[in-house]
Amino acid sequence: MSSVDWKALLVEREDEHLNELMELLRIPSVSTDPARGGDVKAAADVVRRRLLRAGVPTVDIVQTPLHPVVIGEWLAGHDKPTVLVYGHYDVQPEAPVDLWETPAFEPTVRDGKLYARGASDMKGNLLTAIQGVEAIAEANGGQPPINVKFIFEGEEEIGSPNLRDVVRDNKERLAADAVLSADGGQFAFDTPSLTVSLKGLGGCQVNLRTANTDLHSGMFGAKVPNAVQSLVQLAATFHDRSGRIAIEGFYDNIVDLTEQERAEIALVAEDDDALKTTLGIDSLWGETGWTAREREWGRPTLDMNGIWGGFQGDGIKTVTPCEAHLKITCRLVPNQTPEDVVGRIRAHVDKNRPPGSTAEVVPVPGSATPFAIDRDNPVHKAAAVVLTELFGKPPVITRSGGTIPATGIFQDELGIDTVNYAWAMPGSGAHAPNEWYRIEDFFRGRVGYAALIDYLGDNLR
Amino acid sequence: MSSVDWKALLVEREDEHLNELMELLRIPSVSTDPARGGDVKAAADVVRRRLLRAGVPTVDIVQTPLHPVVIGEWLAGHDKPTVLVYGHYDVQPEAPVDLWETPAFEPTVRDGKLYARGASDMKGNLLTAIQGVEAIAEANGGQPPINVKFIFEGEEEIGSPNLRDVVRDNKERLAADAVLSADGGQFAFDTPSLTVSLKGLGGCQVNLRTANTDLHSGMFGAKVPNAVQSLVQLAATFHDRSGRIAIEGFYDNIVDLTEQERAEIALVAEDDDALKTTLGIDSLWGETGWTAREREWGRPTLDMNGIWGGFQGDGIKTVTPCEAHLKITCRLVPNQTPEDVVGRIRAHVDKNRPPGSTAEVVPVPGSATPFAIDRDNPVHKAAAVVLTELFGKPPVITRSGGTIPATGIFQDELGIDTVNYAWAMPGSGAHAPNEWYRIEDFFRGRVGYAALIDYLGDNLR
Repeated sequence: MSSVDWKALLVEREDEHLNELMELLRIPSVSTDPARGGDVKAAADVVRRRLLRAGVPTVDIVQTPLHPVVIGEWLAGHDKPTVLVYGHYDVQPEAPVDLWETPAFEPTVRDGKLYARGASDMKGNLLTAIQGVEAIAEANGGQPPINVKFIFEGEEEIGSPNLRDVVRDNKERLAADAVLSADGGQFAFDTPSLTVSLKGLGGCQVNLRTANTDLHSGMFGAKVPNAVQSLVQLAATFHDRSGRIAIEGFYDNIVDLTEQERAEIALVAEDDDALKTTLGIDSLWGETGWTAREREWGRPTLDMNGIWGGFQGDGIKTVTPCEAHLKITCRLVPNQTPEDVVGRIRAHVDKNRPPGSTAEVVPVPGSATPFAIDRDNPVHKAAAVVLTELFGKPPVITRSGGTIPATGIFQDELGIDTVNYAWAMPGSGAHAPNEWYRIEDFFRGRVGYAALIDYLGDNLR
Repeated sequence: MSSVDWKALLVEREDEHLNELMELLRIPSVSTDPARGGDVKAAADVVRRRLLRAGVPTVDIVQTPLHPVVIGEWLAGHDKPTVLVYGHYDVQPEAPVDLWETPAFEPTVRDGKLYARGASDMKGNLLTAIQGVEAIAEANGGQPPINVKFIFEGEEEIGSPNLRDVVRDNKERLAADAVLSADGGQFAFDTPSLTVSLKGLGGCQVNLRTANTDLHSGMFGAKVPNAVQSLVQLAATFHDRSGRIAIEGFYDNIVDLTEQERAEIALVAEDDDALKTTLGIDSLWGETGWTAREREWGRPTLDMNGIWGGFQGDGIKTVTPCEAHLKITCRLVPNQTPEDVVGRIRAHVDKNRPPGSTAEVVPVPGSATPFAIDRDNPVHKAAAVVLTELFGKPPVITRSGGTIPATGIFQDELGIDTVNYAWAMPGSGAHAPNEWYRIEDFFRGRVGYAALIDYLGDNLR
């Protein structure tokens, strides 16, 4: 253990590290905006140089068809365990701009929080990992006590479309015992958490067609199929009245939450009434037999993201529309795959489309495999020990209804699990205006990374 | 009878009358296009001057909030019967322009047909009425044998929004025994027809809302209502599986077609297979228990004209939408009113909207009351006699699944029936590119109007 040294180093460098974060936040690395391709590239370069300055001996920029991936390797020895730190340096767009109290790309401190696009998601987290590893390496005589690798992508906010290929093409250099994802957060200011599963994602667009042209409703409405009505009737068959997805085989092979898992989830239950009040609704919705949190975290969904067809203007147009469209995405749990689910939707559509209609089911990009960690994973267990020390109490076990494609990609391509190890707080406005990151969490996050690497050096075999 | 004289006159004036039609067709009196307000006005003025030139002693332009109405009165005596000729001088837009073989507002003769926007709908028909009445008046010593009044509006193609007020404000001067609507057509080149009913129209927009904002489907899709899904589930309740409208009381008070009417309709049945082939569908749709033609002509409908909500772009957006919208119009049969039907839709929506959603039902403009003629109407009977002579065979009895608001307005406000007495042919492209009107039908139509006025002078008391 060398805890005194690196802890002192991290305290000493607080101002310097905060300035580094503000510098990185000033770069509008919005991955979805083609006009900001140069900014995304600039952010990748800042990250690359920061890794080099930390002492990482090998840092490469891997080009993709869109934004580059930064890969760093700091090898301590073939006999040592290895962790791969994952993160992304791209950010969401800042729209709606008007709702920001201070400009999105001019980081501003108010009440102990740093406000900027990307503060919590996830430039702050990204730097805690680099700065923490730098400190522990310095305290350890110039290199970390275990092998530490880094992979920072620039396309997370657009669904990581090129990450799988990069990981597949770099299997050997990325080989590790586990991934530490710096993308994520903790349960509360005073309560640490470990996320044990994330959902996968598969989606499609249903294009339904009836006649070969739009028709006059007076002449034809009483006698030919109407595409909007046909789509409505088809779409209404996707769920049964209990909120369960009524697509044959949709739940095949999935494993229901165990009583133990349900008890674990109940410890961090959400208040239904508070949720209703916040959202302005008088009723929640979902598959009966499960709590809201259980559905969010542990049950697959079929979400209708959009629908359109026929006349959508002001006033009246007496048309019998001949085409209508529906966008669907499904959140998946382990043992489901995007391909299988889209195939089942296709079969359901073929079987249930009303007479006189045709319907094609076109997969949409952005699919992701679900992820669940092996609870015996030693890095997961080590993270629990370190978080307990860091927060003064043990982590709660959480899951996510959302999707981080990287977790499934690392499991599929490298055969390793991801431990979510990051510092964003609930309500910190990721993807929304006035995104923030507590400076206290930033400083503590660096300690968290250094402490975990230190602990793994002593305990992981 | 003075048939020799006026018939000769009409033959003599064929070229002159055709030129008049071409002149009127050159005016792009598109009522929906604000940029063409001047053209609509110009067309009204051409009609006014044409009535004056025909000898109509009193012709007024009645201003409305939008386009003017032309009213003419040619009184033959208080003891004489009176007909009111209805028509419109506005036309549909010419889009899509590229599909016209010759420009929409440059009338062109090909193969005995005159091609132009408004040729069949209904500038041709409008002139046959004026030219026919002019001829019979000349042959009758300078005035028609009965009182003839005219009302030509400029807003039919946008749903006649101001006609009801004009009719209500001019009840006395418009008083008549029956209306002759010059807006319409015949069953086939060699087969005359009389239309005994037209449907009414009532519509609304359903605005459904769930949460107070769009939400992340991963965090919320499993636990809160989705507006698109809620709307789909609501909309799927509007019809039952037999195609019958499942709204409480929707069919209350309506009178089913009698066996006699069904037999009448069967005489002009449509070929289902031909319809399917034309439209490229493998199945028709509609309320079971009725033929396609019976449904079109005699059964009310609820038509979904358009739907929209959530994400409609390319690719993927994992949103749980908070609002969705549906446009509905209903075609109505006698004993239904637009207000009542929209009220019943509202009640149905209130009862069937899924939990956690709110929905408002907003009536759309363009409502119209349904119309059915009293089959004993003497002008209807007279028209049958004259059409039989004109075509060499008796008229078939038809109905329309479409709506001409004027017919309901005249029945509501003046208490009189409308006899559809016009010359457009099926497939003449009303509202479509390459609209046409057979020159032969144009010439015959003038004879039809003169002959009917002549006959009514001799036979109507």
